[in-house]
Amino acid sequence: MLRIRLAVVATLALVAAAPCVAAENVAAESVAASAAADKTAEAQAGTHAVASPDGVLRVEFSLVDGAPRYSASRMGAEIIGPSRMGFKLVDAPAMDAGFVVESVQRNSADTTWTQPWGEVRQVRDHHNELRIALRQKDHRARRLVVVFRVFNDGLAFRYEFPKQPNLGEFNIADELTEFAFASEAQCWWVPAFDQNRYEYVYNQTPLSEAGKVQTPFTLQTADGLCLSVHEAALTDYSSMALTRGEGTKYGAELYPWSDGTKVRAATPFVSPWRTVQAADRPGDLLASTMILNLNEPCQLEDTSWIKPGKYVGVWWEMHVGRSTWGSGEKHGATTENTKRFIDFAAKYGFDGVLVEGWNVGWDGNWMENGEKFSFTQPYPDFDLEGLAAYAAERGVTLVGHHETAGAIAHYEAQLDDAMRLYNRLGVKAVKTGYVEFADGIDRIDADGTRHGEWHHGQFMVRHYRRVAQKAAENRVMVIAHEPIKDTGIRRTLPNFISREGARGQEYNAWSGDGRNPPSHTTVLPFTRMLSGPIDFTPGVFDLKLNSGDRPNDQVSTTLAKQLALYVVLYSPMQMAVDFPEVYEQKLDALQFIRDVAVDWEESRVLDGQIGDYIVVARRQRGGGDWFLGAITDEHGRVLPTLLGFLDRGRRYKAEIYRDANDAHWDTNPEAYVVEEQTVDANTVLTLRLAPGGGQAIRFTPLPPE
Amino acid sequence: MLRIRLAVVATLALVAAAPCVAAENVAAESVAASAAADKTAEAQAGTHAVASPDGVLRVEFSLVDGAPRYSASRMGAEIIGPSRMGFKLVDAPAMDAGFVVESVQRNSADTTWTQPWGEVRQVRDHHNELRIALRQKDHRARRLVVVFRVFNDGLAFRYEFPKQPNLGEFNIADELTEFAFASEAQCWWVPAFDQNRYEYVYNQTPLSEAGKVQTPFTLQTADGLCLSVHEAALTDYSSMALTRGEGTKYGAELYPWSDGTKVRAATPFVSPWRTVQAADRPGDLLASTMILNLNEPCQLEDTSWIKPGKYVGVWWEMHVGRSTWGSGEKHGATTENTKRFIDFAAKYGFDGVLVEGWNVGWDGNWMENGEKFSFTQPYPDFDLEGLAAYAAERGVTLVGHHETAGAIAHYEAQLDDAMRLYNRLGVKAVKTGYVEFADGIDRIDADGTRHGEWHHGQFMVRHYRRVAQKAAENRVMVIAHEPIKDTGIRRTLPNFISREGARGQEYNAWSGDGRNPPSHTTVLPFTRMLSGPIDFTPGVFDLKLNSGDRPNDQVSTTLAKQLALYVVLYSPMQMAVDFPEVYEQKLDALQFIRDVAVDWEESRVLDGQIGDYIVVARRQRGGGDWFLGAITDEHGRVLPTLLGFLDRGRRYKAEIYRDANDAHWDTNPEAYVVEEQTVDANTVLTLRLAPGGGQAIRFTPLPPE
Repeated sequence: MLRIRLAVVATLALVAAAPCVAAENVAAESVAASAAADKTAEAQAGTHAVASPDGVLRVEFSLVDGAPRYSASRMGAEIIGPSRMGFKLVDAPAMDAGFVVESVQRNSADTTWTQPWGEVRQVRDHHNELRIALRQKDHRARRLVVVFRVFNDGLAFRYEFPKQPNLGEFNIADELTEFAFASEAQCWWVPAFDQNRYEYVYNQTPLSEAGKVQTPFTLQTADGLCLSVHEAALTDYSSMALTRGEGTKYGAELYPWSDGTKVRAATPFVSPWRTVQAADRPGDLLASTMILNLNEPCQLEDTSWIKPGKYVGVWWEMHVGRSTWGSGEKHGATTENTKRFIDFAAKYGFDGVLVEGWNVGWDGNWMENGEKFSFTQPYPDFDLEGLAAYAAERGVTLVGHHETAGAIAHYEAQLDDAMRLYNRLGVKAVKTGYVEFADGIDRIDADGTRHGEWHHGQFMVRHYRRVAQKAAENRVMVIAHEPIKDTGIRRTLPNFISREGARGQEYNAWSGDGRNPPSHTTVLPFTRMLSGPIDFTPGVFDLKLNSGDRPNDQVSTTLAKQLALYVVLYSPMQMAVDFPEVYEQKLDALQFIRDVAVDWEESRVLDGQIGDYIVVARRQRGGGDWFLGAITDEHGRVLPTLLGFLDRGRRYKAEIYRDANDAHWDTNPEAYVVEEQTVDANTVLTLRLAPGGGQAIRFTPLPPE
Repeated sequence: MLRIRLAVVATLALVAAAPCVAAENVAAESVAASAAADKTAEAQAGTHAVASPDGVLRVEFSLVDGAPRYSASRMGAEIIGPSRMGFKLVDAPAMDAGFVVESVQRNSADTTWTQPWGEVRQVRDHHNELRIALRQKDHRARRLVVVFRVFNDGLAFRYEFPKQPNLGEFNIADELTEFAFASEAQCWWVPAFDQNRYEYVYNQTPLSEAGKVQTPFTLQTADGLCLSVHEAALTDYSSMALTRGEGTKYGAELYPWSDGTKVRAATPFVSPWRTVQAADRPGDLLASTMILNLNEPCQLEDTSWIKPGKYVGVWWEMHVGRSTWGSGEKHGATTENTKRFIDFAAKYGFDGVLVEGWNVGWDGNWMENGEKFSFTQPYPDFDLEGLAAYAAERGVTLVGHHETAGAIAHYEAQLDDAMRLYNRLGVKAVKTGYVEFADGIDRIDADGTRHGEWHHGQFMVRHYRRVAQKAAENRVMVIAHEPIKDTGIRRTLPNFISREGARGQEYNAWSGDGRNPPSHTTVLPFTRMLSGPIDFTPGVFDLKLNSGDRPNDQVSTTLAKQLALYVVLYSPMQMAVDFPEVYEQKLDALQFIRDVAVDWEESRVLDGQIGDYIVVARRQRGGGDWFLGAITDEHGRVLPTLLGFLDRGRRYKAEIYRDANDAHWDTNPEAYVVEEQTVDANTVLTLRLAPGGGQAIRFTPLPPE
């Protein structure tokens, strides 16, 4: 059985599998294999169950007249009723019925591995596995393996198509996986099958009233149970949306290629894992590392060059209308303007300076300019080489930028040169962009035929991974905007360090009344953030955008909430978006952005309700400082909070950045107070959050009493 | 102003006001008076506002065309819209309009006092007060004072009728107070204007769909805000129910005397306080001490004889049909049976032994026997004097019992003798009962005319208080069943130590399918428990009632949940209801009941959702032990819980009493595990609660490391 698994791993490894020795510390000896064949009557009938190590979650697989079904329960109560599994294939018989069980294997694992960076350093992978090999009685005995892994905090399953005589190359017409939720619930979702790349304000509706939704798809029953459906290890497949059927039953719906095919495959082949996290409190969903555990170990031999950090840059000014990406009078990416940001970064300890609009191709309607962009040639008023040196002298690096406008072939043709350039210039990270215009992502066949593809289909899944690999070869980290959703690939390729994939800060700059509402960031932690880091770009201090040219726009938070987002919305690369002159007017508040860590030893969600509020505490990696972030929606809240996470042996200085008593996101957003207090693990701090407000705290250990 | 307040206090003091020197530690010097008249234009127009010390809550009073109105907001958002105030009088013009403001006074207090027993030892009384003296332009210039007190966690107001020439004796026909809740909410309630003395399973409905409800009346908006309406210092008034008007507007409705009059009064006179607690999380409602602060200080000179404790007794056996209250073959209150309980109490450290059915009068349908009960004459087979001595020799005392069946005159005529008897026999507590039959509480006029009265009207409010006072004179504590609701009188008369006033354990013994559902005890903490201690009588180990004669009944909890109730449902007098032979089969579980404290230094609600689950931790008064109780409704739950309440300098031994992994309230209720673990303030314990289950933990400090 172990051999089978290793074979699958090898199949998945699109680059040579070279274990990250330092980062991966798999206690292989703790893997207990019990591959004894299951000979009971139940097994003969094709019914097999597997429970989580703590017994709380239980998954049951069965063949109903040869058709595979699974269901799941939690503490004896059904959470997913009998649900379909299998596939329709293009021009081939379906693989959804006529099966018999060929073999059943069980396995248990309890290992711990170390992340090069993350919300937590140590990750425990503790699960029970059930592997069921199926064979079709007809259709030339084609084989399909269904693998379940059940963790204490969630369940997962995937399909494996073993190498076999009668199934070589094949195309998936439909994945038939269902999630028949056992009860009505409230759910939070953004629409699927729309080109807008997850960039929506979340809808909240009853489960029975949603339609086609992206994942992570989070729901909470009236009794409080929280579930979130997502996928893990989406490496060479189309991404999965969910489409509601009858009542509260949802089915997987894969994003198609432009020819309608869902997935192009050849055996041996595996699907991504379909995952369902479960917790009794919304905040407990965030503690799950299941999705990371379901990804392949790190494939990079050396990860020492991958370093979390903070950056500023030439970006927000384009959004608020102060300058342009394109060349001309208002061009933002000038040598002089960039030096201003480099000086600011150097003075206040930021690691990087992002410059967008630095390269030729932006003029005109840049969203139509996919084939005009050069990824190596700067505009004449941007001295790339000189600025790289200017930055280096000051201990700062440029953050690169590649806007593709969705012209993939054009970008991939330059990818080698572009990444090599950054490597040579000491650029450690590149922000990529895929703001496609009109007909979707541009794909060009060998014969020159053009196709419009989804961001979310197999074509782009492969592209994003290819970019991350090419960047890794050049020791460049990737921050993708308009990305494919995160499914934990950061475990395998930890230089794919952050991404957008949600309605970010930028919408506050130009959406007028359509800007992100105060509740937006109180939904994200329980939905989008379950997939991985976000480059949300917090840090606006000029909340009414007085320094820009957007009189009808504003950011719907208080200033203290902007600070809290650095803790709440996890990213190992955090931007501070506002202007040097704005920050220099509020150096006391800037201090928090300077101090806050971006890499964590451990993380705790202290409390939270989806769309209402959340309180998060994280301990700095390699240090004793704790940071707390608390945010609320449009309702002011008073949250007495016990600081039991602090080291029980220490007292701490708490540097508190809070809303002033009369702060309000709309009428008085910039009213904040910075104050200090001595606290310890027994202190109850009353967090008072203004309407649309927040609070950020740094806790620094004091010398022993 | 202070003089006026003291005058009111004197009026309220139905027994001589003798401060409890040890218990009351009022820092009078911190009371800041600022009685300067408010001369602004707003004030002239009759609009005056007062905020909580932290500024979060704000109450506004105004005269609208001479009619008093108040409204309330929290962090700028309205929680109670403009609401009516005032009275209709019997045979006199109403006091609800035609007012002018005569004077406005403000006051602030920040004092701390000590409870003789309680959920917390120290109580802080921190509030701002607004006192508005009104005068009617017509109606012979009658005067009414409206007093608001705003605390950080709630607001309160009451009416004062000063001594005045044109208002002496008067009868209230209606109190017109309204609570115009500003938004829809879910609410939890038991029906008012029904004879069943709060003994209901709670209803959960939208606010706009409830009808006539008792208080505490708790609601939670979709945004999470929790409010609870109740009253404080109900000492000589009718109790207040709420009746819904339009939409989400509720009005006070007082329980009438049998002649329809609501309240009989004479100036100077005060109403109870009308209270509204507010919190962003359900559990935070429980931390409020506002209601105690609104009661008068302790009136007993010596409280040293008032001692919390635990008791067993001859009671559950009547409920499960093993014996009878009345005499005869199955009589439970025999000398021999009582000795069995005394021996058990002595052996396992219980303080008291309750014996019901000890006194003559029970034979026949005892609910009709109000005038047959003797409160001094035991049945011949019950050797009262001998048993009192037998108990005393073993360090145990009898707990007395007075069932009145609602015949108040008959009981009050014997009250002196009955209490003196207990005093002489060393009986430290009496359980009283008011299971009235048919026509309500029996009141007899001087001329012998009989009236049927409500439990909840002014007549019975006076009676319950009179009993508590008479008991205090005899150093007897009172545990009232079928009581008037608690409104904090325990501050003034701390010998009124506990009471029923909810659907207790007994319903599990004889209600069949109508027994308390698993969710019942997860609603009580957020509703009934906001008023004060409950004599719920937990501790059933034989959950299927096999030892009784009730084949169709059972208790809808696991055994571990029964243990957890000792921590969750606060009472300074806790019963352990099951039989000696049942407990002796499970001595490891009994150990928790033996160990658990009944008096507390501090209490913390760690988490909870109304009707779903609650986790409570309390520290033993005068000791370092902590106890934790966690319970859930019919849904199993997994609750990772940070133990930050533990002393940050100590390690603790945790004795854990939990549901077995396969426990279930219905199918496997008695499966429990007792285990030990070493923990500290940084430990995250995963509380796993079976469906209908719970967990109880004792934390004992270990010697310093």
